[in-house]
Amino acid sequence: MNPPLGHDDGGMTGRQAGLRALFNPRSIALVGATDKSGWSVATHANLRVHEFGGPVYLVNPHTEVVHGERAHRSLSELPGPVDLAYVMVPTAAVLDVLRAGADAGIRAFVILTAGFGETGPEGARREAEIIAFARDRGLTVLGPNGNGYINAAAGITPYGLPIPVPLLRGPVGVVLQSGGLASAVLSFAQARNLGISLLVSMGNESMLSVTDVVGHLVDDPATRVIALFLESVRQPAEFAAAARRALAAGKPIVALKVGRSDTAQHTAQAHTGALTGDDAVIDSVFRRLGVIRVRSLEDLIITSGVLAELTRDGVTAAGPLAGNRLGVVTPSGGASEIIADRAEDEGLALPPFAPATTAALKAMLPAFADVANPLDVTGYVVVDRTLLGRALEIVVTDPGLDVVLLLADPVRDEPADPALPRAVLAANAGRIAVAPKPVVVVSNALTDVTPVGRRYLAEAGYPHVAGGIEHGLTAIGAAVRWSRARAAAAEPTPPPAGPGALRRPEGTGIWAEDRAAAFLAGCGVPVVPSRPAGDEAAAVAAADELGYPVVVKAAGLAHKSDTGGVRLGLGDAVAVRAAFGPVHAVAAGGPVLIQPYRTGGIELICGIVRDPAWGLMLAVGLGGIWVEVLRDVALRPLPVSPDEVIGALEELRGRAVLHGARGAPPADLAAVAEVITRIATVAALLGDRLESLEVNPLLVRGDQAEALDALITWRS
Amino acid sequence: MNPPLGHDDGGMTGRQAGLRALFNPRSIALVGATDKSGWSVATHANLRVHEFGGPVYLVNPHTEVVHGERAHRSLSELPGPVDLAYVMVPTAAVLDVLRAGADAGIRAFVILTAGFGETGPEGARREAEIIAFARDRGLTVLGPNGNGYINAAAGITPYGLPIPVPLLRGPVGVVLQSGGLASAVLSFAQARNLGISLLVSMGNESMLSVTDVVGHLVDDPATRVIALFLESVRQPAEFAAAARRALAAGKPIVALKVGRSDTAQHTAQAHTGALTGDDAVIDSVFRRLGVIRVRSLEDLIITSGVLAELTRDGVTAAGPLAGNRLGVVTPSGGASEIIADRAEDEGLALPPFAPATTAALKAMLPAFADVANPLDVTGYVVVDRTLLGRALEIVVTDPGLDVVLLLADPVRDEPADPALPRAVLAANAGRIAVAPKPVVVVSNALTDVTPVGRRYLAEAGYPHVAGGIEHGLTAIGAAVRWSRARAAAAEPTPPPAGPGALRRPEGTGIWAEDRAAAFLAGCGVPVVPSRPAGDEAAAVAAADELGYPVVVKAAGLAHKSDTGGVRLGLGDAVAVRAAFGPVHAVAAGGPVLIQPYRTGGIELICGIVRDPAWGLMLAVGLGGIWVEVLRDVALRPLPVSPDEVIGALEELRGRAVLHGARGAPPADLAAVAEVITRIATVAALLGDRLESLEVNPLLVRGDQAEALDALITWRS
Repeated sequence: MNPPLGHDDGGMTGRQAGLRALFNPRSIALVGATDKSGWSVATHANLRVHEFGGPVYLVNPHTEVVHGERAHRSLSELPGPVDLAYVMVPTAAVLDVLRAGADAGIRAFVILTAGFGETGPEGARREAEIIAFARDRGLTVLGPNGNGYINAAAGITPYGLPIPVPLLRGPVGVVLQSGGLASAVLSFAQARNLGISLLVSMGNESMLSVTDVVGHLVDDPATRVIALFLESVRQPAEFAAAARRALAAGKPIVALKVGRSDTAQHTAQAHTGALTGDDAVIDSVFRRLGVIRVRSLEDLIITSGVLAELTRDGVTAAGPLAGNRLGVVTPSGGASEIIADRAEDEGLALPPFAPATTAALKAMLPAFADVANPLDVTGYVVVDRTLLGRALEIVVTDPGLDVVLLLADPVRDEPADPALPRAVLAANAGRIAVAPKPVVVVSNALTDVTPVGRRYLAEAGYPHVAGGIEHGLTAIGAAVRWSRARAAAAEPTPPPAGPGALRRPEGTGIWAEDRAAAFLAGCGVPVVPSRPAGDEAAAVAAADELGYPVVVKAAGLAHKSDTGGVRLGLGDAVAVRAAFGPVHAVAAGGPVLIQPYRTGGIELICGIVRDPAWGLMLAVGLGGIWVEVLRDVALRPLPVSPDEVIGALEELRGRAVLHGARGAPPADLAAVAEVITRIATVAALLGDRLESLEVNPLLVRGDQAEALDALITWRS
Repeated sequence: MNPPLGHDDGGMTGRQAGLRALFNPRSIALVGATDKSGWSVATHANLRVHEFGGPVYLVNPHTEVVHGERAHRSLSELPGPVDLAYVMVPTAAVLDVLRAGADAGIRAFVILTAGFGETGPEGARREAEIIAFARDRGLTVLGPNGNGYINAAAGITPYGLPIPVPLLRGPVGVVLQSGGLASAVLSFAQARNLGISLLVSMGNESMLSVTDVVGHLVDDPATRVIALFLESVRQPAEFAAAARRALAAGKPIVALKVGRSDTAQHTAQAHTGALTGDDAVIDSVFRRLGVIRVRSLEDLIITSGVLAELTRDGVTAAGPLAGNRLGVVTPSGGASEIIADRAEDEGLALPPFAPATTAALKAMLPAFADVANPLDVTGYVVVDRTLLGRALEIVVTDPGLDVVLLLADPVRDEPADPALPRAVLAANAGRIAVAPKPVVVVSNALTDVTPVGRRYLAEAGYPHVAGGIEHGLTAIGAAVRWSRARAAAAEPTPPPAGPGALRRPEGTGIWAEDRAAAFLAGCGVPVVPSRPAGDEAAAVAAADELGYPVVVKAAGLAHKSDTGGVRLGLGDAVAVRAAFGPVHAVAAGGPVLIQPYRTGGIELICGIVRDPAWGLMLAVGLGGIWVEVLRDVALRPLPVSPDEVIGALEELRGRAVLHGARGAPPADLAAVAEVITRIATVAALLGDRLESLEVNPLLVRGDQAEALDALITWRS
């Protein structure tokens, strides 16, 4: 692995300018062009077929003619200036090419050549050499070991694999940490009738990373949605910053991040040497950043298409969704039922139509239609093709809906009578453009938008059609989640309710409960009262003061109950006296604590742990089997707001316990969230010095939440 | 709803003959044919375009020419005999058409006309009238309110909606409880290059049900896989019998059964008036029957395609899979990682290659390839197109794999040089046909097999290509589950280890624990000893006999601990004496029981409940929050084998508790399963009289499982 380019290398502005130049050359040299290489053939053909507007120079020291055109001996002998060199020479010759190119005034390079860091230490050394040279000379390098890029918006295609024809221009920027998948993504996007702005195959990311390209796309006016294939995120902090900028700009990021399984984590490490990080942490960080995580190539592109449609110009109701209330208009009862099942999976609500909507639909639809949401306008649509569009026109006015799904398949083959589909498409396109709420068109199943279909849709100015109910509903669910993240990010975070002036202690090692709890109490966290006792008399005095029953325990032992280090529910002085000696022995010189004995209530675990990539994370869970057996834990990156803590608690599978299942009084979630937020705020303020802070258990009784034990581990 | 046709109506043989005649007419009359109806236009066009071999008579009393052909006034005036009447006349005229048809010797009818049971009581009355007439005259009726069928195998297409061209013939029989989805299924299957044998749109199922058509397809030589869209299963017992026949015949059934969500259950009821049944019960019954449940139209067809491929003639390794060990051969590291994630989702194992496999791959692949499962042969495949096929040839010999996935996209557009793709396809088709284990070809993403692709695949004799990693892995997971169900069904069920000669008691009402437990104990189920006690002295005597500590409890109260009806852990005679009075008072005349007090161990719940559609079901779960909060219950239809009970226990989310989580000694699952199987066997032997039988808790300590309480509810 190579170190990411630091901020000392010209800063964001220089890098942004470098990226713009890389992706917008006016002339290109293909260095190492040869008829013998499939990559050279493809790159040259791509530039010609997709009509790159400037000169393309072929460089080969051994041949006069390549790809049927005149070749040049070297970069120093070209007849005109070159903005980009596309490098396909053998591994050992790459550095010389960079030297010659830099001397000839070339500032941007795509290196297709492999044999670098991905092959082992020797390759990594070669790669470091190249990058050191490039930095020294202020060059911008994409790759090595990458296929290049496709700037579809500008018709610039220095890309080493065949590009499906036609190359559709459109709103989706694609960044891939895999060369092999680019062709599949391009084919699939074309089949979805979804155009791309820029596609970049990253290669080894030795100078430019995914994060850099994401930053470029946030500023790129041709890009409305950013689609990523990720094996790992190499610069977590910078990626987070870029994602926040994208969210603020209203440009959704959709990511297929592999590594959910153990095998994939191994495979990714073998493949790129990159660490993929803990998958649950990625989930929580992406949710915070509004990065929509999907699990398939299909969802990557279909969700991107739906999100691009929601931000399309010329649509009245463009923009984030106001909520999750979905109205559904279909010509089929069967499809309605599939949609209902999938809507529930995605957390979408299907509220009944408002009375006025129902009345208007009843007046318009055949008498035998069952007017309900999801709506089946009935097979009578075969007789009256306008039925679906007229129903849509009514449903979009329903005030109780946030988004409407129209189920309609595009034309696949040339119809016998084109007038009818043309009229229907045009009418519905007009209705959707002026609808007072967003409409997502979804087809029944995931089949290609055929060339014929593409033509009809374009003629009608029809919106994007999401491919099939299965993936279309995933996309609508994603749009709701993205819209929520955007709304949450737009709200100013209230200043933390934590301690006003926390003196950051100079901690080292581990602070066990006496010290950790005292520290937390000092920061305003409710902590069970605790008195140290050095002998039986002191123990009894403390118990008398605190009130019986009490607990006598040895502080700071990890498994107190296993070792006899804790005695619970001691009801009188005699019991305290009897318990003290054995506990004191187990404590082995450490403090013995006297505390009130708490019973009942719900035990929570509240931990703040440091993820090596993403920093401090709050983990909350229910005590006992919930965490130990079920791993039922919700994660949130710090800082957190009380609302986010409530969201985390509601995400637990055992949340019913908090709502009073099994006869316990329900927890006051707002009050509990205040305490957890305060604990998290203390942890955040401890900052770099903190390794972990755990409160276990945090005992909840109604609106009371009290730390019964705590442990702080400092970073070494 | 209409009553299903009973067995008194000619028996299966007559019905089968009726179905064969219905689906194989030599001449067809379209009754109510008119240029004004889209259905009539489509049906006529379908019969002509798809070249039905016999005469098609158009019947219209008012017109001489319809669809450009001569029309006849009535069924009685046709120039030749008719095997099938396709009825499109108004609702009120349908009965007259049946009468005239029956008089003219027609035995089979498809009724497209709507306005029957689906519209309300008046329509249901009309429908009953028609069916009564048909039964009386021995007619076979498909519908009403259905679009008809497509017998692609025989080129017979009396079907009321346009059929995409070309209509591909193939191995999949499709039965749909939705007319609207048929077009989507046909289009999607065509796009997947998957042919159908017979597609039937069921309509109201008033005489013929899905089950009848499934039975027909099990016997149909053109059908290898049966794909169903189900809103409800109207004849559970008959459906189960047909599914068992299909499993025994090696014909997989794949079902998209809607109604997972509450909304869908409502929608289905509104749509067809059918009850959809409890969804978890459906899951468990389908698993037992080997019916593969999918959640999308895409999975319905793609899974059917993969299962059809596994049973294709001319493939060496055709047949069920031996296990879940998947080998993967791809040209892309990124795709490998997506596959690894999806394989884990589907319960597929990705074992390391055997040493010989690894050595052979290393000798063949470029030095920089990382030889592992999943295998990425590297982008060098661009240079050497044979790389993938040669790697496949090695991997299929690995003895540690049950099935191999080859990731390869079919040709989409006409290639510049057709020779190369032709050679690669032909070589790989040959390798796959003779491979010693099944190979499933999967494309990267779900795009159409284009007409060009279809031609190339056919020329090469290439196997079916599953559409995309996402759905392809779902299909491979389904193939493993189907293969397991088939293997399990093939094994003879061992005779139940229950009581040899159970005297079936004539129970009524509810048997509380004293009676229920005694009955179970008599049947050989381990039950905690229990002694009734009428007074303090008897209670103490019983406790002395059983040994302290003991429990004193009022038998048969539902919430004993809430009402003071139970006292636990009584350590001596004094405590028993003190407890007896209050418990006796709560018992209110019912028996008071003395039992040994058990502590520790794991509490299970073991219930047998009657599902109104599917009969007695075993439900097992862990006690406490697991059932109460998490609804963590596994269901199995009766009868069950001990192996199935172990499978059910292993399905629980809290299974780690059984394996010794939280310090408890692990349960001996085989021993526990023996006891649960015995309880289930007792319930099964009680048969029709039983409403429910619950053992709660069943206390498990190591290899001991003992019923602490039981309740039997008899059917009224």
